[in-house]
Amino acid sequence: MKAESILLGHGGGGLLSHELVARKFLPLFKNSILERLEDGAVLDTGESRLCFSTDSFVVNPYFFPGGDIGSLAVHGTVNDLSMCGGTPLFLSAAFILEEGFPMADLDRIIQSMAQACRRADVQIVTGDTKVVHHGAADGLFINTTGIGVVRYDRAISVACIQAGDAIILNGSIGDHGAAILTQREELGLDAPIMSDSVPLNGLVARILEASPDIHAMRDATRGGLGGILAEIADQSGCEILIDEKSIPVQEKVRGVCEILGFDPLFLANEGKMVVFCPYVDSQRVLQAMNGHPYGKDARIIGQVEKKGKGRLVMNTLAGGSRVIDMPAGELVPRIC
Amino acid sequence: MKAESILLGHGGGGLLSHELVARKFLPLFKNSILERLEDGAVLDTGESRLCFSTDSFVVNPYFFPGGDIGSLAVHGTVNDLSMCGGTPLFLSAAFILEEGFPMADLDRIIQSMAQACRRADVQIVTGDTKVVHHGAADGLFINTTGIGVVRYDRAISVACIQAGDAIILNGSIGDHGAAILTQREELGLDAPIMSDSVPLNGLVARILEASPDIHAMRDATRGGLGGILAEIADQSGCEILIDEKSIPVQEKVRGVCEILGFDPLFLANEGKMVVFCPYVDSQRVLQAMNGHPYGKDARIIGQVEKKGKGRLVMNTLAGGSRVIDMPAGELVPRIC
Repeated sequence: MKAESILLGHGGGGLLSHELVARKFLPLFKNSILERLEDGAVLDTGESRLCFSTDSFVVNPYFFPGGDIGSLAVHGTVNDLSMCGGTPLFLSAAFILEEGFPMADLDRIIQSMAQACRRADVQIVTGDTKVVHHGAADGLFINTTGIGVVRYDRAISVACIQAGDAIILNGSIGDHGAAILTQREELGLDAPIMSDSVPLNGLVARILEASPDIHAMRDATRGGLGGILAEIADQSGCEILIDEKSIPVQEKVRGVCEILGFDPLFLANEGKMVVFCPYVDSQRVLQAMNGHPYGKDARIIGQVEKKGKGRLVMNTLAGGSRVIDMPAGELVPRIC
Repeated sequence: MKAESILLGHGGGGLLSHELVARKFLPLFKNSILERLEDGAVLDTGESRLCFSTDSFVVNPYFFPGGDIGSLAVHGTVNDLSMCGGTPLFLSAAFILEEGFPMADLDRIIQSMAQACRRADVQIVTGDTKVVHHGAADGLFINTTGIGVVRYDRAISVACIQAGDAIILNGSIGDHGAAILTQREELGLDAPIMSDSVPLNGLVARILEASPDIHAMRDATRGGLGGILAEIADQSGCEILIDEKSIPVQEKVRGVCEILGFDPLFLANEGKMVVFCPYVDSQRVLQAMNGHPYGKDARIIGQVEKKGKGRLVMNTLAGGSRVIDMPAGELVPRIC
């Protein structure tokens, strides 16, 4: 890593983020749990198996169609815990507030957090509040960190992915990123694009019931579907093949991407996930997902080809195929 | 709460902080665990008893004599977990970085975190990094959230405090606050005042071994010794009596307080704690503490008088006695 100072891209979920973690944090904080680089850590305390995940939320603007920083902060951590195969139980909430932040906005945000907790069936059990001078933060930042219990017998990890695995996606991509972008750019759409921010723990419970052999799950947040699949290909050392025509993109999301010059493949989602499971289990998992509101549009979008060449390949709408690299550069900053 | 926007005092650890939590967060996030308002939450997952605590660190400047934001972020959460009677095991670390933040400073800070983890025998097992535009944050903010296991049989809580309890303090007060203030004000002292930031888990393990009947522990961070004891008096409904002459204050800390107009009683500490235990156990606890490097100056500073009138009273050096209220106003912002 050559940069002498932090760039926006270091937080973008792409190549620079990946390098910051892999080359700076990992060597220093080195331990077998952190090394796995999953959405959360699975911990053995001697008495129980837990999952543990943290996220700071800096999304701008903090109110957007379909949610706000408060609900996003609850869903984001609930989803990261769920991707570990855990049942989310407890959250911490830590606020960094800028002096002068409107109390009415704080009220609305914490009400939204409380409602999101009820929907996701988790409790905020501990917290912290810091205030910094006017100008030392942009409004408010929220960290949520969560604990869940892991009762699923088998390890769920990128390391478990195998050649032949089916890859299932639960719905249209790019909605959250497009919602934030249109809000920020003040594009006057007839109907706003809604963020897809939802808690995925209910859907994940269905998935785990449907198959005793789920290999990996990952939510497609920063970096988008393309970013996380390219990262998974790299981490697992497997070639991953996906079909562009099987990946749903809402018409208005595609339109906004064309206007603003983004690719929905790399836009953040906050309610979309991929599941890796043996092909023989894929129909059963798909059916279970289709029976849940957040999985009704689930479909198989690709498969794991072989070990040995960690890369993501997409068969394009135009009939060709191309290698999809981990996105470099800044992507969309402050999307979550 | 009448303020229409956030004031610095809402994060100061005094009356406004207390009101923000008690009147806004608690009613919304209401649950029996959060209601206890301890330094961390004690959780029952069915299989084990855990403690869980979160803190965001926004200290300015981020390097100071005796530590930096990195070591502080590790010690702070280790200490909060320890105050619940838990053995800290795992931390998450979430960074919010300002675009342009010097990579060399980040390197130094994460090295310091890694060293602090080794000293405190905890592991950072999961993390997050966000980057915001230049001007949208002041350098860097770090959230650490921790998990520990609680093996101590009895509840350790302000609710367990009883009339007759001895109150033990482990050393001189105001060091951290004075270290930050002198650094910030660029007072040219002959020898800098060092922050007292240390991990207290080793000391707490000694305390818990010494007595099976520890009632409460609290580290005297934001709000200082006076602030946390006034809060404990309020929460427990007990009158707490302390002796000013028994409370150690370093000469140079007293000097800085006189110059800058602060009271060491309300200055933050990052390695000082109070223990509440039955008077009959107090000598044994004190001896155990005195045998540990971070407790060698431990002493009894007061006692719990009676239930019914939750207030803090101090016998002063001048021979009188006065009621110490929870500090109002902004105290020292960004001390941790």
